[in-house]
Amino acid sequence: MAKIIPRTEDFAKWYTSVLIESEMIDYGFVKGTIILKPYACEIWNKIKINMDKILKKTNTLNCLFPTFIPFSEFVKEAKHVEGFAPELFKITEVGNKVIEDKLVLRPTSEISFCNYFASLAISYVDLPIKLNQWCNIFRVEKNTKPFLRTSEFYWQEQHCIFATEKEAIDFSYLMIKNYASFLEKFLCIPLIVGKKTDYEKFAGAVTTYTVETLMQDGQALQAGTSHYLGTNFSSKFNINFQNASNHKELVYQTSAGVSTRLIGALVMCHADDYGLVMPSKIAPWEIVLSIFPSLKKPTKDILTNIKFKKIKSILKGFNYFVDKTEKSFGFKINKYETQGIPIQIILGDKEIESNSILIFNRYNREKTIMSIDNLNSKYIREILKNYDKNLYKKAKNFLDNSIEITDNLEDFTKHINNKKMVLALWSGNESDERKLKELTGASSRCISLEQENLFNKYRNSNLCFFTKKPNPQWVFFARAY
Amino acid sequence: MAKIIPRTEDFAKWYTSVLIESEMIDYGFVKGTIILKPYACEIWNKIKINMDKILKKTNTLNCLFPTFIPFSEFVKEAKHVEGFAPELFKITEVGNKVIEDKLVLRPTSEISFCNYFASLAISYVDLPIKLNQWCNIFRVEKNTKPFLRTSEFYWQEQHCIFATEKEAIDFSYLMIKNYASFLEKFLCIPLIVGKKTDYEKFAGAVTTYTVETLMQDGQALQAGTSHYLGTNFSSKFNINFQNASNHKELVYQTSAGVSTRLIGALVMCHADDYGLVMPSKIAPWEIVLSIFPSLKKPTKDILTNIKFKKIKSILKGFNYFVDKTEKSFGFKINKYETQGIPIQIILGDKEIESNSILIFNRYNREKTIMSIDNLNSKYIREILKNYDKNLYKKAKNFLDNSIEITDNLEDFTKHINNKKMVLALWSGNESDERKLKELTGASSRCISLEQENLFNKYRNSNLCFFTKKPNPQWVFFARAY
Repeated sequence: MAKIIPRTEDFAKWYTSVLIESEMIDYGFVKGTIILKPYACEIWNKIKINMDKILKKTNTLNCLFPTFIPFSEFVKEAKHVEGFAPELFKITEVGNKVIEDKLVLRPTSEISFCNYFASLAISYVDLPIKLNQWCNIFRVEKNTKPFLRTSEFYWQEQHCIFATEKEAIDFSYLMIKNYASFLEKFLCIPLIVGKKTDYEKFAGAVTTYTVETLMQDGQALQAGTSHYLGTNFSSKFNINFQNASNHKELVYQTSAGVSTRLIGALVMCHADDYGLVMPSKIAPWEIVLSIFPSLKKPTKDILTNIKFKKIKSILKGFNYFVDKTEKSFGFKINKYETQGIPIQIILGDKEIESNSILIFNRYNREKTIMSIDNLNSKYIREILKNYDKNLYKKAKNFLDNSIEITDNLEDFTKHINNKKMVLALWSGNESDERKLKELTGASSRCISLEQENLFNKYRNSNLCFFTKKPNPQWVFFARAY
Repeated sequence: MAKIIPRTEDFAKWYTSVLIESEMIDYGFVKGTIILKPYACEIWNKIKINMDKILKKTNTLNCLFPTFIPFSEFVKEAKHVEGFAPELFKITEVGNKVIEDKLVLRPTSEISFCNYFASLAISYVDLPIKLNQWCNIFRVEKNTKPFLRTSEFYWQEQHCIFATEKEAIDFSYLMIKNYASFLEKFLCIPLIVGKKTDYEKFAGAVTTYTVETLMQDGQALQAGTSHYLGTNFSSKFNINFQNASNHKELVYQTSAGVSTRLIGALVMCHADDYGLVMPSKIAPWEIVLSIFPSLKKPTKDILTNIKFKKIKSILKGFNYFVDKTEKSFGFKINKYETQGIPIQIILGDKEIESNSILIFNRYNREKTIMSIDNLNSKYIREILKNYDKNLYKKAKNFLDNSIEITDNLEDFTKHINNKKMVLALWSGNESDERKLKELTGASSRCISLEQENLFNKYRNSNLCFFTKKPNPQWVFFARAY
């Protein structure tokens, strides 16, 4: 039986126990690395397949760039190297030789793509160029946590170049909307879309859009980002194109990505004290059909029984798996509950005799006995639809009820300590943000994209709640992963 | 127009020019690395999808292991470290700290999987366990060549553990047969299946099975390997299982893999002086339908024309792409010819008027004009089937005509210099193989699995052609990539 630590006892330990007991991960032998076992690997595969379709719709083409970046190239964009320097793994020995220009393992691949773009002879008719790669990424992390911060993780990184500023800005916004709808539709995770403050934005970006989610412990998690890079990189790497009047111009750039962090997000958003609760579109299987042979009815008899065949024909078109093993009832139910399989269908001796099945719904843990005659694919489709809807609704209620509005530091601190997300008017610089974080543990998650609405709804002051400076904006704050 | 260097002029330059002109690759900025551009990335994706289905049929589950291996762990299997030491990239700097136990970038992952298997409590009922990962691999190479030898490449590596020696040996043989049929069926590449000599086998293996192919320049290329590891690793890493009588026993291991080398193989096996010739099952598209708008009939008119719609409905079910761009006839024909698209269908003003289409077959470069009325999906399926069959047959003839049999070194040398593969009786040790290679440039490719047949057919001596030692085996030799 799975040994899951209750969330109320210790949220961090609960998280780890869910990952281990559901057989998602194990630890690698280098500190801060994890093994994605088959169950997690299949979840990541499902995320990839569905996200890749979205990328294809934006006319993005996949490619594969080398992992290595010479350190000498890395220093070209000053903010970029400043932001990433402490996170770099460096190769100094190649074969048995020590090399002079150390090789960096990509912590992100702007540099590689920039170098490639700069090597092309680009005409305005070739633009935009939209590339993406699914790859592993390497970053030194002090406090590691599976899927959230590990030395190595997996992601997609999209890198695009455009002829005009407007197209690039519009596209970086489109990508964050794509990520948002992916999270809602496939992962059933509610979210806030916004813009990062200068302090929190990507090293080298003009604007960073972000998708922020809220975990069950009240901590926020950045689940995807889309950057408008302007000409920050193209000016350093000389990425030009020939415009219609035959002059050279710098391209405008964007980059965007989501990573295996999404797996962490879906665990901490939906899982409970019994284990994972998987959204149906990302679950390795929507349905597990478990059979329970007996002395009277051995496996063979069940698999050839007309009722079993009927159920299988109803399940055609669903992503299901038949567990034919002879493990006990308790073992199977517990295993797939821990792994968060949306629907379990149980078929044993007793069920065949009574022409019924037992359906176990992971969302509410309800067991329903129903006649096999009443089972049909429409009915199952309905269960799955409601399952996803409920998953989203529950998380959405939690998010909505977790947002507090305030205009003073005392309440702000109280809310943050109560594990809430705070929406407040902010007008501060980077040092103000650092100070606020030191005082409260909270960081700015994003600048809301609905300033006007919020001002109309909540205008209670014209000053920053913290610095008391004028011209504030509505900003979300929370403790964050 | 593509600038492809003729094969007869310089085979190595021809190979590179095909890769560049077909837009498969570009060079990374670290020596020995390449960028897989969208066209090559899609070919690799097709290989992955189809090979993954074969792995799934053997009940293999995908997972993802960390790239890093501590150097201290690497030295546990003596032959393994000896074989791989000169090929290791080593990380010595993490963040800004120098670390003591250097981190190796995986040149293969036996060590990681062994460490994982050893951490499990395995009962005999859990066995066999079959895992696989699709990942990047890092090896220092002196003479690099795109897809054949690069610092970083992509592969699948399967790692399995078994309760008995027999199961493990049988499975390692099954895997090489799987690889062989994949090469024949999907890549249309003929091959020889055999066993490596002790000198050529994998560092740490008891037996290495190999799939050997022959390129158009008469050089052999090892296209896939499957290793029976015995207890060489399990004894060093303490990988035990509880047997039925509750005693601990060492597991028997196998590993197997194919890599992006396969892309190199299919280029050097099928491509010609006009560029790539892609097997239809691996081509990014089986068919490109190119339209040619004119002043009289602009793009919009063609796309809404009933004849265009009819062709599209016939192509439903095929993997095809419509090129709607306004590039010239020559440009499009040339581009897809260089990229080796099996079938191009041309539809312009003239074709619509005459109710005909132009079909361009990449295999024989034949252009056929036919009435749209005679076009149907069965006809196209037939073209594609013959296309693949011809591709295979041509390469098979080349392979069959390239094998020479000899019993003396003089003829052996002559054949090797004539770019042939040689089949000869061999009974030598590692130093004999080194000597033969120094003299002739040829290495042993594999020990034939058909000893009895060959002895019945060709018995001309009972001595090794080179060492004149007794008890020889039939072995294939060639110069090799």
